[in-house]
Amino acid sequence: MQRTLIKYLKEDTLTTISGWATKIRDTKYMLFIILQDRSGMIQVSIDKANNEDLVNKMNGILANSVLKFTGKMVKSEYVKLDGKEFIPDSLEVLSKAEKLPLEENADIDTRLDYRWIDLRSEKNNLMLKIQSCFVNAMREYLISIDFTEIHTPKLIGAASESGSDVFEVKYFDRTAYLAQSPQFYKQMAMASGIERMFEVAPAFRAENSNTNRHTTEFTSFDIEFAYIDSYEDVMSLEEDILIAGLTKVKECYEKEIKEVFSKDVIVPTKPFPRIDLNTLYKELEKRYNYQIPEFDVGDMNAEAEKLTARYAMEEYGHEFIFVTGFAKTKRAFYHMRKNDIPEGYDLIWRGTEITTGAQREHRYDILKKQAEEKGLGKDVEFYLEFFKYGCPPHGGFAIGVDRLTMLLLGIPSLKEEMFLFRGPSRLTP
Amino acid sequence: MQRTLIKYLKEDTLTTISGWATKIRDTKYMLFIILQDRSGMIQVSIDKANNEDLVNKMNGILANSVLKFTGKMVKSEYVKLDGKEFIPDSLEVLSKAEKLPLEENADIDTRLDYRWIDLRSEKNNLMLKIQSCFVNAMREYLISIDFTEIHTPKLIGAASESGSDVFEVKYFDRTAYLAQSPQFYKQMAMASGIERMFEVAPAFRAENSNTNRHTTEFTSFDIEFAYIDSYEDVMSLEEDILIAGLTKVKECYEKEIKEVFSKDVIVPTKPFPRIDLNTLYKELEKRYNYQIPEFDVGDMNAEAEKLTARYAMEEYGHEFIFVTGFAKTKRAFYHMRKNDIPEGYDLIWRGTEITTGAQREHRYDILKKQAEEKGLGKDVEFYLEFFKYGCPPHGGFAIGVDRLTMLLLGIPSLKEEMFLFRGPSRLTP
Repeated sequence: MQRTLIKYLKEDTLTTISGWATKIRDTKYMLFIILQDRSGMIQVSIDKANNEDLVNKMNGILANSVLKFTGKMVKSEYVKLDGKEFIPDSLEVLSKAEKLPLEENADIDTRLDYRWIDLRSEKNNLMLKIQSCFVNAMREYLISIDFTEIHTPKLIGAASESGSDVFEVKYFDRTAYLAQSPQFYKQMAMASGIERMFEVAPAFRAENSNTNRHTTEFTSFDIEFAYIDSYEDVMSLEEDILIAGLTKVKECYEKEIKEVFSKDVIVPTKPFPRIDLNTLYKELEKRYNYQIPEFDVGDMNAEAEKLTARYAMEEYGHEFIFVTGFAKTKRAFYHMRKNDIPEGYDLIWRGTEITTGAQREHRYDILKKQAEEKGLGKDVEFYLEFFKYGCPPHGGFAIGVDRLTMLLLGIPSLKEEMFLFRGPSRLTP
Repeated sequence: MQRTLIKYLKEDTLTTISGWATKIRDTKYMLFIILQDRSGMIQVSIDKANNEDLVNKMNGILANSVLKFTGKMVKSEYVKLDGKEFIPDSLEVLSKAEKLPLEENADIDTRLDYRWIDLRSEKNNLMLKIQSCFVNAMREYLISIDFTEIHTPKLIGAASESGSDVFEVKYFDRTAYLAQSPQFYKQMAMASGIERMFEVAPAFRAENSNTNRHTTEFTSFDIEFAYIDSYEDVMSLEEDILIAGLTKVKECYEKEIKEVFSKDVIVPTKPFPRIDLNTLYKELEKRYNYQIPEFDVGDMNAEAEKLTARYAMEEYGHEFIFVTGFAKTKRAFYHMRKNDIPEGYDLIWRGTEITTGAQREHRYDILKKQAEEKGLGKDVEFYLEFFKYGCPPHGGFAIGVDRLTMLLLGIPSLKEEMFLFRGPSRLTP
């Protein structure tokens, strides 16, 4: 018999439901099972006196087993879950669970050892669905304006931008590296006549630090497009895709996000506020008595990001703010510069930087000089070649998909947010 | 001034166009430039006598430079390209190209050294757009039926399914491996209550063979879903997504594919023909006098795949055919079996296998036994755990995105098809 999702059950209609037995309660006369599928939960109620076969089949069945019931949903004023219960005629045990090895209040590292069980919670399942929805809405928007999705290689021949923090791969009789970002290759796409490209793919960082904001592997949403006039075009596109993403998330999940995560989904208005770094420093000092440490002058740091978000909210009532005018020493060599200032920005959302974007330097001679200034040699030679035989002006940015979801839902750590977190001391399951 | 794409130019309207100068022809009185953007090409015609400034700016400019013209499109019966030419008033050189290092008829390996130039051809640009369209149409279909996109880790702690052909990564003070497929993790998603998941991501194979069908990195479209009744459900879903993909490709690119690749886009009818391996062997022998070699009994090989496609066309007039009933020794341990035969299939399209799909074994004890039978030990222990605490019945399949595009467009080699091919002796650019 066709399976019906719990959410769509119709009263008094014979059908089949399947899902996890999240709770089993055995009373004197009744057996109650809370069954959960991807759409919701329902109480399955078995009158023991009249259902010997069902009771026998449930014998020894523990919570978390996967069960398939055939029967009818009925309304009942005694039942909590939406006033509905399911009265089964028959049962098939699809999967018998052992006793869970995981306590309800286990710490995050223990929960990560059993991540597949941890993910079963309504909250975690919802989180993954929302991320999928968010990313896909941004992707749909890009496709609607003629962007092409490209898959760039993650195995690369040179240690890329910096040489540090790169994983080495044993590649037959030589060494390959794992791409830290598709930066060089998305720019190669610009030199290939693609004009507008994006990629959603893993990026790898060999950073040996165990914090909530670091992971050795994450999903990066990368965008690059050509024939821009300035980095204003890049900021404008980023505004558009975030608005597209948040509009869709609000449409599909606003209520659940409020209920489960206690967060509001706010679709931002365009344009987002913009502020130059030097002006920002003055505002932070004036308003919050915050002075940027000498080491970070020309750049931001975590505290400055937090205060900047506060400033954006107080001054503009806006959750987002672009910061421009970073120092060239604090930005990558491939950012285009004007009067020695990188033509780029950081985007802050809810107190955290979610993006660095820029117009790129597409003129070979200048780009080569900027690379040399940063002490980059042989490793970027192959990349510089992309700009020798004609390359249109272009720019782009990247968004960390996981960080975006964290901020959207107020999840405190990447460990909690990712399907499977990877860190220096975490490679399993 | 706002840029207009060449395809959308309106007669006698002042605007800007930008693109590659694919050809420059300097005659006594006129300068002709074929300018190409992502939408098409147009001839830019400069009357030298009246345009000293333009002629000066074009001095020393080689083909492949990127140019921006302001002016008007006019109709002209003397011009080949759609009877249109562009008469510019002004010019900005966006990027000056050096003389190309690539001859027009260079072999594929030389062209791969300069892949960004090679990709500029109409054919290659179109190929990437079609792949993006195909993949996205399949993705959209899945999302419309409640699938969630998941990002599984590529850095893994154990050498996965086989131990051979796996890349090793230096992971701080230990060794990690690159995932050959997300198989184990997409099944983990099934044990996590996701019910329906897909992923489009790189997969890595350390195969030291230099053929047209092998690459060390490729894009895999992976699908897994729960609460299936049998592998018939898996085949049915694969039919649906291929129909969705090919319908969209036909809608958007049928004409170009015919013109540029001389290929027809055929949207298949559902159900695709199905044949059991033993029956197939008999048909191949009877019809084509082909006998499967002893070594391949219970499985297919490249020649059998070709003949099977021929059989499908002759018998059913169908480009696709499912083959079922493979030997358990020829299939992965995690395929569910019934009467000792794997509950799975291969799908053949245009003479090549594009998918292996199956219902998976979700019962811990049986799965463990099947793994042991194949001599798999410690490396799959973490995976077996996923099935101990309840896991619904499920199945799935994977499609190699690159192979799919090759077959769609009749491209002879992965080297020609991928954005950037990776092989044992190819890690650059």
